[in-house]
Amino acid sequence: MAKPVLIMVNKTTAGTDVAGEPYTVVDVDQPQVSVLDLGVTRGDGMFEAMSVVDGKPQAIEAHLRRYQHSAELLDLFQPDVNVWREAIYRSIELHEPAHELMVKTIMTRGIEGGGSATGWVLCIGVDDFTKDRTEGVSVVTLSRGYPHDIAKTAPWLLQGAKTLSYAVNKSVYREAKRRGADDVIFTSTDGFVLEGPSSSVILLQGNRVITPKTDQGILAGTTQESVFEFFEGAGYETLYENVTVDRLADVDALWLVSSVRQAAIVHTLDGLAVPVERDLTDRLNEYLLGRSE
Amino acid sequence: MAKPVLIMVNKTTAGTDVAGEPYTVVDVDQPQVSVLDLGVTRGDGMFEAMSVVDGKPQAIEAHLRRYQHSAELLDLFQPDVNVWREAIYRSIELHEPAHELMVKTIMTRGIEGGGSATGWVLCIGVDDFTKDRTEGVSVVTLSRGYPHDIAKTAPWLLQGAKTLSYAVNKSVYREAKRRGADDVIFTSTDGFVLEGPSSSVILLQGNRVITPKTDQGILAGTTQESVFEFFEGAGYETLYENVTVDRLADVDALWLVSSVRQAAIVHTLDGLAVPVERDLTDRLNEYLLGRSE
Repeated sequence: MAKPVLIMVNKTTAGTDVAGEPYTVVDVDQPQVSVLDLGVTRGDGMFEAMSVVDGKPQAIEAHLRRYQHSAELLDLFQPDVNVWREAIYRSIELHEPAHELMVKTIMTRGIEGGGSATGWVLCIGVDDFTKDRTEGVSVVTLSRGYPHDIAKTAPWLLQGAKTLSYAVNKSVYREAKRRGADDVIFTSTDGFVLEGPSSSVILLQGNRVITPKTDQGILAGTTQESVFEFFEGAGYETLYENVTVDRLADVDALWLVSSVRQAAIVHTLDGLAVPVERDLTDRLNEYLLGRSE
Repeated sequence: MAKPVLIMVNKTTAGTDVAGEPYTVVDVDQPQVSVLDLGVTRGDGMFEAMSVVDGKPQAIEAHLRRYQHSAELLDLFQPDVNVWREAIYRSIELHEPAHELMVKTIMTRGIEGGGSATGWVLCIGVDDFTKDRTEGVSVVTLSRGYPHDIAKTAPWLLQGAKTLSYAVNKSVYREAKRRGADDVIFTSTDGFVLEGPSSSVILLQGNRVITPKTDQGILAGTTQESVFEFFEGAGYETLYENVTVDRLADVDALWLVSSVRQAAIVHTLDGLAVPVERDLTDRLNEYLLGRSE
């Protein structure tokens, strides 16, 4: 795999002036983060990860909008999206060309008491997701421990923000592995389907394509939006709903969709077989990979 | 404030060999953490923070035991406590002497795919907590969003581990500030008192001193243990109980206790006055600050 490209963003936030260049290309093999940074001491920051296909970042504006939204939920400085956008394109230009790459943006609250954010853009190679896209994945449902209305009743719990405090999102993959599965769908304590640890959930039922409503403390999926465009173009009805867990047992197809892996088809849920729409999934992934900016 | 002392731990984990020194003193003003480290990208790691009074780290063995416990909950490598203990003492020796200091230990899952932990020890000056210890603090209760038995029913949510995914523990201080308060007591969705974002809760009711049981997804407080020793020595009865929220309205005193701030007396809870036992609090803090290793 080619060496990742790392750009430190100096002018991280809107409405501030910095001396010198707005961003600086640095060596990814050198440490760049202080042990005093709240990003590492408290997971106090946010990120986005977007796919790059044939040199084009996908859904970059949707990612930048969600970056701004996470900053609001975290009471964080508002990112200077023009600088971030420029740094994203620059990181791709500097990376050895490849069919698929990934760009990650990270912004932290910076050094405690320092009053300014730390930020960087990383362009890096990706795993081969062909198997997940074609043969599919085995999934287990795991409780996220919260009722579905948690973002409204307890906004301080930051549900719906894409934060750096993602230890649980890693932990649930270990739990899935212990149960012989590849991935996870989070459920609420009151019986609703939420999202995957790094994906949105899409159900096919007859001619209807459904995803859980995002007012349940879940992320607005940037890929999910494109998935709905695909299905609308193909004559399906698309719906945002509160989806009860029992509805997962009665689907014609089930996908986990995300920026880098695109659409993974679910072939097994909690040990039970799920119908696999292979041709439809192939066309969906072709559409997603063909997205322009 | 004197310059913090930073020691990178090379032999972070038990049962591994590393070439060269087990730890290295480095410059805290230089970045030491890779942007690829799971500690910063996912908050995937753990920490401890202990008080140092007149050069002596307090409750160091209790902290090292909890460090090992967090590693178990996180399926993380087991720390080599002998190396960590040595690095802690070394960091204190190298720091400019002061009446009170703090040592933080951090261990992350390391660089993704790298298979080895990243770790460091930081010895750093502390804020002056005299006001919190004598005049006291104003506290609000905030829901943590989980039922009290969450650690048993959903261990993948990592409740009870002292992880680097602490964005919520920072967020709730902002919510407290918005409500005109200094600190927070977390409650469960089913009406139990849990802990502070960085403290244990202690109630005084008559001759009884009570703290919430730690099987409710809360941390075993290293300072809380010492607080119980103090009260037992002073003739009080000490109890671990499931404490319902309504009991907070009927206390003779209420404290938030933690390693570095020691005992902060609560003078206001959700806008209502709480009895303040100033002399008892003074004696408690004297005891806590006088603890040997």
